[in-house]
Amino acid sequence: MKAKKKVYLIGAGPGDPDLLTIKAYRLLIQAEVVLHDELFGNDILDVIPQSARLVNVGKICGDHQNQAERQDNINAMIAAEFKAGKSVIRLKTGDSLIFGRGIEEVRFLKEHAIPFELIPGVTAGIAAANIFAIPLTERLKNSAVLFCTGHTLEPGVKQFLDLVNFLKAGNPVVVYMGYNNLEKITQTLIENGISPETGVCVASKVSQKDDYVCGTIHTIHQKLIHKPLPSPTVIIIGQYVESLL
Amino acid sequence: MKAKKKVYLIGAGPGDPDLLTIKAYRLLIQAEVVLHDELFGNDILDVIPQSARLVNVGKICGDHQNQAERQDNINAMIAAEFKAGKSVIRLKTGDSLIFGRGIEEVRFLKEHAIPFELIPGVTAGIAAANIFAIPLTERLKNSAVLFCTGHTLEPGVKQFLDLVNFLKAGNPVVVYMGYNNLEKITQTLIENGISPETGVCVASKVSQKDDYVCGTIHTIHQKLIHKPLPSPTVIIIGQYVESLL
Repeated sequence: MKAKKKVYLIGAGPGDPDLLTIKAYRLLIQAEVVLHDELFGNDILDVIPQSARLVNVGKICGDHQNQAERQDNINAMIAAEFKAGKSVIRLKTGDSLIFGRGIEEVRFLKEHAIPFELIPGVTAGIAAANIFAIPLTERLKNSAVLFCTGHTLEPGVKQFLDLVNFLKAGNPVVVYMGYNNLEKITQTLIENGISPETGVCVASKVSQKDDYVCGTIHTIHQKLIHKPLPSPTVIIIGQYVESLL
Repeated sequence: MKAKKKVYLIGAGPGDPDLLTIKAYRLLIQAEVVLHDELFGNDILDVIPQSARLVNVGKICGDHQNQAERQDNINAMIAAEFKAGKSVIRLKTGDSLIFGRGIEEVRFLKEHAIPFELIPGVTAGIAAANIFAIPLTERLKNSAVLFCTGHTLEPGVKQFLDLVNFLKAGNPVVVYMGYNNLEKITQTLIENGISPETGVCVASKVSQKDDYVCGTIHTIHQKLIHKPLPSPTVIIIGQYVESLL
């Protein structure tokens, strides 16, 4: 049975096709049109039938455009395909709502009365914690976990001190897109009273190459000099952060 | 091909078998022994073959034990099954590391040199946001999201004021196991300067019954009196929290 014509915003998970949900997999194998981000590997795209139209919107809507223009273009493409009578899959890495700009597309679809459905995916931070057995929450130790972008964690950002307080309370912070800023981030954490012994794990190409480096705020940079990690990465910082592998 | 004998800690997602990952599904359909929590519905258990030994550890290790005793019992059961030559699946709702006590079991397995693997799952908070199209992160609005237990959000808890600051910065807080405390929580948020117009969405039996009530800190209680929601619930609170369905 073909699914009802609508726009499916699908979180593809971190990259391994085995971490797709059953629902995402079922929709992908009967896809008509798939607009996808740069997925850092073709394994998931291989699930999609040859007959489907596959558009890499990450490539088409590239660096020459600002983010708003880029998003407008993607929205227009989704609408055009849907109006041409197609069921459209908008495929995103991880989960659409965790730094995936899914809500911008949802707002557009709603304004244009285009039916849509969001399919949740496994976000890279949670996948990394599982693959490397890194504690996120643990009874009697901590009971909250924060997901942010490297940007949020930059010194000068209003929320920076709140993050520091969270870390001080033993809670881990999961940082997306923070690799290039890591040295600046850890230096500022130390200046704000976070212990240099605080754990740091950097995971690279989660569920695909599965490379990682774990250490402390004090040791992580030296370790990364010896073993630099390719993008995308996710970084977990916190008092109880270590790999239990 | 049978999977290698080890202990698989599997996040089953919020409840709909279609939100299992492909990897979890493949392991479940060839399961030998499955120790599962109370899963609030049998749909996922129906995936497991009749030949498998199925143990509801949520039921066996019940309320008459304290949490540490309960966990010790579960650990002992896992070890006994593994030592009897079985591949053991420890099946948890959502994700094992997001308030799932997975790390306690990992520590035990590591201490006893029992090989293990964690399979990430879709956590209920992210699933709820997708199913009801609730913003978690949005460009130019907020860039962090916090997951905590109702307990963390209780007044008196050290981290409470940090949470208040996060909310003030526009970031949403996803609260697990907070339904019974909701009135106390929102009252204290208001006393600490959070606007009564702040959005609140309460989602119930996510991905199964999919019932929900959205409102503001000011209106949510009246709405819940007219439509009380059954457990389990997940609550999302924040300046930009609303359902875009």
